[in-house]
Amino acid sequence: MPVDPGFLSVDPLVADLLARCDFPPAGTAVTCALSGGPDSSALAALAVAAGLIVNAVHVDHGLRARSSDDADAARSIAVGLGISCRVVRVELSDGPNLEARARSARRAAIGPAALTGHTADDQAETVLLALFRGSGATGLAGIRHGPTKPIIRLRRTDTHGLCKQLGLPIVHDESNDNPRFRRNRVRQELLPLADEIFDRDVSVLIERAANLLRDDDVLLEELAGTIDPTDAAAITAAPLPLARRALRRWLTDDGYPPSAAALERVLSVARGEAVACDLAGGRRVHRSAQRLWLSH
Amino acid sequence: MPVDPGFLSVDPLVADLLARCDFPPAGTAVTCALSGGPDSSALAALAVAAGLIVNAVHVDHGLRARSSDDADAARSIAVGLGISCRVVRVELSDGPNLEARARSARRAAIGPAALTGHTADDQAETVLLALFRGSGATGLAGIRHGPTKPIIRLRRTDTHGLCKQLGLPIVHDESNDNPRFRRNRVRQELLPLADEIFDRDVSVLIERAANLLRDDDVLLEELAGTIDPTDAAAITAAPLPLARRALRRWLTDDGYPPSAAALERVLSVARGEAVACDLAGGRRVHRSAQRLWLSH
Repeated sequence: MPVDPGFLSVDPLVADLLARCDFPPAGTAVTCALSGGPDSSALAALAVAAGLIVNAVHVDHGLRARSSDDADAARSIAVGLGISCRVVRVELSDGPNLEARARSARRAAIGPAALTGHTADDQAETVLLALFRGSGATGLAGIRHGPTKPIIRLRRTDTHGLCKQLGLPIVHDESNDNPRFRRNRVRQELLPLADEIFDRDVSVLIERAANLLRDDDVLLEELAGTIDPTDAAAITAAPLPLARRALRRWLTDDGYPPSAAALERVLSVARGEAVACDLAGGRRVHRSAQRLWLSH
Repeated sequence: MPVDPGFLSVDPLVADLLARCDFPPAGTAVTCALSGGPDSSALAALAVAAGLIVNAVHVDHGLRARSSDDADAARSIAVGLGISCRVVRVELSDGPNLEARARSARRAAIGPAALTGHTADDQAETVLLALFRGSGATGLAGIRHGPTKPIIRLRRTDTHGLCKQLGLPIVHDESNDNPRFRRNRVRQELLPLADEIFDRDVSVLIERAANLLRDDDVLLEELAGTIDPTDAAAITAAPLPLARRALRRWLTDDGYPPSAAALERVLSVARGEAVACDLAGGRRVHRSAQRLWLSH
């Protein structure tokens, strides 16, 4: 049963949620990632309510037996909201880092400009995952706020509530229950325990910390932008936080971000404490004539 | 039964632990805080093993029925290690923030130069408490490494193991079991759950994150040091992370650090979005002739 678009524009819940979103001006054409779960379905509904021209994209990564059912559900939700829905199928092999590879394939399929349904709850989980990985400010700043994350200030209770109120036939993503994925255990066990210990909604406070770190990180990245990462003397002379960022940007632009330990090894090469060092994936940094060189 | 000082100098466990400590040169006179618990007892024993002239101070804050027993235990441990022990009694009234007030009174009693037995476990707890309070890098950087924290890289298992091996009559601090103190629940419930979810010792990774944030924070504090916090135009023109730090330093030097929310209010006054704002404790910041003024 289609959702009445008139209902979307007058419903007080929708108005309240829209006031906490950051959508582009009415009439703008946008692509929305639509898994068929509550967050992305709420994103699509709110984008329609904001007067945008919405094209949904559903990524079917064949990870679950019912993945074609999910595609059908996404199509039904799109029909209900009166928007188009394209289904893109990506192939993933089983193996390690499945979650990260699925996320990366999904990003490639939907494109960099697509809106995604990340919420403040995703943000809190992301920050905790970064902390328990030993990340610095760049990781701890969490999901970058920006034009592709219009509902980042909403909570998961908001998106669930909206989908229920609109009667959208959302799917339950069973992979969200799989304790194999650490993020799920952070969501289902660690954050509720922290809420109980601190007797408040800690996700709000984690978001505040992440915002402060993001401001720090943006400034430090800007300052690091003036340093040539291949100039060993410049890297050695720079304050550590800037030297680390300049090197990380260099190595990330070359393919993928270095680990914290790899970064410290590259710093040692810059300082002349070592002549060369190996990085994961067959990359190697060596020092010659006061310059750093990256080879594969 | 006194510990044989010769034993301390040849024991391989002691040598291994000392290699991970940062004590001043042998012969230096130091004051060590000695609660009688395993961390501070291990600190005192290692300080003796490092050849320091150790004067222990035990702070009796009368919080527990057995607090005078604790003072006796601290004296016994000091006798066992062949060092002096002074007992300082501080008075604390019951009420809110008992833990914070006890810590503050303890610091005042032992003096700023006294060595304390903070370990890497204390550090991980401190970082998590800061995160769940919404702190920025300054809080998330945790306990400052430095001359008063010589055993910050040791673990609680190290200090317990050493006390057991030396046969020191350490006391069990029951307040460490009291779930009224959030730090205890972080230690006893949250960190073990995180260790299980991530299948590793997350305290090591939290320490790595804290070290990266500390490097960032030291540089940002240094850059903020050139900004006059009472110059509204300078505060408004400065990048946010520097403006926040300059204002926080100003308000902290005046008595105590502002909350994150209070800091944002003062920023609004600097920008001319408000004429004045109230802070906790009856402090007030107002703007006049392009300058910020603090009154009580």
